[in-house]
Amino acid sequence: VVSKALVQKVRRTLDQYDLIPAGARILVGLSGGSDSVALTLLLEELARHGEFSVVSLAHLNHCLRPTAGRDEAFCRSLSVRMGLPIAVESADVRGYAAAETLSIEDAARRLRYRFLERAADASGATLTAVGHTRDDQAETLLLKLMRGAGSTGLGGIYPRRGTIIRPLLDVSRDELRSYLVERSETWIEDESNADLTNPRNRIRHRVIPEMDATYGGRTSAALARAADLMREDGQWLDELAAARFELLAGVTAEGIVFEASALLSEPAPIRRRILLLAMRQHAPGREIARVHIDAGEAVLKSKAERADVPVGQWELKRGKLVLSRQRGESK
Amino acid sequence: VVSKALVQKVRRTLDQYDLIPAGARILVGLSGGSDSVALTLLLEELARHGEFSVVSLAHLNHCLRPTAGRDEAFCRSLSVRMGLPIAVESADVRGYAAAETLSIEDAARRLRYRFLERAADASGATLTAVGHTRDDQAETLLLKLMRGAGSTGLGGIYPRRGTIIRPLLDVSRDELRSYLVERSETWIEDESNADLTNPRNRIRHRVIPEMDATYGGRTSAALARAADLMREDGQWLDELAAARFELLAGVTAEGIVFEASALLSEPAPIRRRILLLAMRQHAPGREIARVHIDAGEAVLKSKAERADVPVGQWELKRGKLVLSRQRGESK
Repeated sequence: VVSKALVQKVRRTLDQYDLIPAGARILVGLSGGSDSVALTLLLEELARHGEFSVVSLAHLNHCLRPTAGRDEAFCRSLSVRMGLPIAVESADVRGYAAAETLSIEDAARRLRYRFLERAADASGATLTAVGHTRDDQAETLLLKLMRGAGSTGLGGIYPRRGTIIRPLLDVSRDELRSYLVERSETWIEDESNADLTNPRNRIRHRVIPEMDATYGGRTSAALARAADLMREDGQWLDELAAARFELLAGVTAEGIVFEASALLSEPAPIRRRILLLAMRQHAPGREIARVHIDAGEAVLKSKAERADVPVGQWELKRGKLVLSRQRGESK
Repeated sequence: VVSKALVQKVRRTLDQYDLIPAGARILVGLSGGSDSVALTLLLEELARHGEFSVVSLAHLNHCLRPTAGRDEAFCRSLSVRMGLPIAVESADVRGYAAAETLSIEDAARRLRYRFLERAADASGATLTAVGHTRDDQAETLLLKLMRGAGSTGLGGIYPRRGTIIRPLLDVSRDELRSYLVERSETWIEDESNADLTNPRNRIRHRVIPEMDATYGGRTSAALARAADLMREDGQWLDELAAARFELLAGVTAEGIVFEASALLSEPAPIRRRILLLAMRQHAPGREIARVHIDAGEAVLKSKAERADVPVGQWELKRGKLVLSRQRGESK
């Protein structure tokens, strides 16, 4: 009973966001946790009636937990049972995090998506499905809010980004577990999920239950829906801002240059996004925080002479706002 | 020491949002709680150096709590001590809530703002100051998120709305209490704040402390800042949508009418806001929820034939989306 309703629900998500075109060949990212195991089974079920196929699984051994070997073995045996090939690699997440000064979580994510890309190429997959749920969506929204993000970024997890698709974004973790139990399937419990020093776990096990108690019901659905709407607003504003950025930004030997007066006449939501785009273009892949946008705004409005940001330095020079690569301390 | 920094901070808020023009005559809404007592003292202090004056206080006795009489007496005595007149009225919040099928909180808020408007008129005040803090802002954001609001509405509490101003929006409740303690001032503790069946209290005493524990610091500031940015985005989108609404909406005997094709070609963030504006114009003062916008969208996209909403009915008729006053059940 759970199964049938759940399959319908996932099908609706696929339709709503046009996630899987006919003829798609899908790689499934598999950690061995309930979400990705359910994703694998659900996509196999949908593929039977659908016009796409699951061509391979892919598991990255993060070598972080003592149980990492067991998780890998679990994934390999699932792949055998399902008659699907599986790509497996091991990654030195700790080493990479140290070398790139990233958090373990950020380093793991980056290495995971790179691995998935390689695995998709190797298996001839056209899309890669990952198992993020409505609960992940709600947790991500709260984490971003607590870091004070604005609408951009508040949209949380996207149903599709490039060739990555997330068919489970409208489904709760509990629904997936009921589905697995109903089908007598097992999964790996990640014992590190109980560690409350990890912000996401604290949100999951403490903050959201308190929110649920406030209205006596699940708030994840409402939070995820709010994230949807913010993503909708944010995406459109991002598009508008990208077009304005193309028009207003000049690239010189000094860096990225704007006419200050032109930038000041943009509405604030667009102006802030233009500053963000400049920093992203200047140093792709670096995390840009709200304070770095604030810094650019302050310089633009002559409230500060210059401001160092991780990607360089904002400076106002003869009516032009300049984002240069050199930073104040290097002078 | 607290006093001086706090006065500076409030002055910055006044400047940033241009809250008090020169020559303004201000009425202060006074409940007797720490926020509004501090507001009264701070504005008096700022008025000494500023170019505005505090002309009166105003207290509405909500007749809800057994201590309502004590609260009123406290406010009257503060007004005497400060040499400021005070307008006092009593309201039958319970009766009004029942008559209008509103929550006690909504009924109290509506009666309070109406009273403040009358009191401002009577005292010749040009602006009315109320004591909302950064904590109120953070709590409101979370409450709205849990009800699944989108960007509109997520902006939370506005620094200014019409003649209502909120000079304490950048200040925390704790800062205000330290200020009062430093000045040996007292205030009324609202014992109903401890009632955890009230959603706002639960957010205040349970959810936000759990969020604080997640990163080991105050999250209210980050939440309030996120609300600022969402308000900025939302306000601009609201303005764009209002202009499009004027262009696209026709008012006929049937109700508010749109060309469906024109509405469908609007970007989603604008289209949703146009539907909201239609419902607001159709029945001013009614609470419109996200589901009522969803209902309009579903009808527009032919996913439903018609949909009843509190303000009437959405229907698609010969290529036109109509919001009519009659509802399905009245046929």
